[in-house]
Amino acid sequence: MFITFEGIEGSGKTTQINLLYEYLKSKGYDVIKTREPGGTEIGEFLRDLLLNKDRHIAPKTELLLIMAIRAQHVKDVIIPAIKDKKIVLCDRFFDATYAYQGYGRGIDLKTIKFINNFVTEGITPDLTILIDYDVIDGLARRMNNTGHMDRFEKEGFSFHKKIRDAYLKLSQEHRERFLVLDGSESVEKIHKIIKDRVDSLINARGL
Amino acid sequence: MFITFEGIEGSGKTTQINLLYEYLKSKGYDVIKTREPGGTEIGEFLRDLLLNKDRHIAPKTELLLIMAIRAQHVKDVIIPAIKDKKIVLCDRFFDATYAYQGYGRGIDLKTIKFINNFVTEGITPDLTILIDYDVIDGLARRMNNTGHMDRFEKEGFSFHKKIRDAYLKLSQEHRERFLVLDGSESVEKIHKIIKDRVDSLINARGL
Repeated sequence: MFITFEGIEGSGKTTQINLLYEYLKSKGYDVIKTREPGGTEIGEFLRDLLLNKDRHIAPKTELLLIMAIRAQHVKDVIIPAIKDKKIVLCDRFFDATYAYQGYGRGIDLKTIKFINNFVTEGITPDLTILIDYDVIDGLARRMNNTGHMDRFEKEGFSFHKKIRDAYLKLSQEHRERFLVLDGSESVEKIHKIIKDRVDSLINARGL
Repeated sequence: MFITFEGIEGSGKTTQINLLYEYLKSKGYDVIKTREPGGTEIGEFLRDLLLNKDRHIAPKTELLLIMAIRAQHVKDVIIPAIKDKKIVLCDRFFDATYAYQGYGRGIDLKTIKFINNFVTEGITPDLTILIDYDVIDGLARRMNNTGHMDRFEKEGFSFHKKIRDAYLKLSQEHRERFLVLDGSESVEKIHKIIKDRVDSLINARGL
């Protein structure tokens, strides 16, 4: 089973992945936690490059680096884990590429789809949890937590607003796999909704 | 004017680029020398990653990193130089991607073409100089010069043979822009043929 988490900066998705990971482990499931960009040795190396706010990276280069990371991640981590019947929790996946590089940077969505199909080899999440959150509150929360902003976070309000709107649009286009949650609710309340949804998905699959 | 140099490892193309660069400069032309993978700050950083023989890089990741480098290189270096009416000499360009990642690594040529069109924005060399050379002699020459082998050079004979054959195939498919030279000839003789061809190209263009 493959579950992805999406949301703008500071939406609280990493907290929720960690809670779900601990919950599933406590129930005895074989579960792994991974992320994009990242998830492999070369992926984490390239993540640092992508997030470094002093790097000059053209939009097409940014897209292709993210796809390069995904190719390695899908091949070395996600496909093997799915084959081993593990539950895979991934912090961002291809929806983020449509949101950030498509709607955010303005790259043609069909081009993204073509390259994404090439790298994912048909892998699609069984469930995508979108934590919707206010842009300003998210960036403020991030600043409070880390004290600095990376290359994406330092983009202006209008960029992040585009990402939030794009995620909501994607969730409406793919209702069958999206669970949209209100990030202004308490951590506990959000975790409970996620837990219930994942429990029923696990039951439905007979895992 | 955009001139690319192609050839297997140790074919002598870098020597020939340097000689042509000096010749064109001595005649007063505004000429730049660049290379792929590389050519920009991020491109050179990623080149080191790609050539590092200790890195584990999946074929699709390798292709997408090369395309990421090209996107930045075309946008920041090649297109501005062509607009400024400079002569651009480039050590490897898209033919190398068809040869190495297509014929060498086995990635579908149509996929390479799609992504290449996305990153090059229609830029095609006016002249591509292929220095054809024996695979074993090329690798031996490289070893003698550098004392070590990078991630591509350390591939076996059959990989490099595929690259050589692929270059010859590409040169036959695009006769209008390829000049194929015998790398076993002397440096001076090869340089003279290149010089003569570039001189007549310059004359034909009225530069």
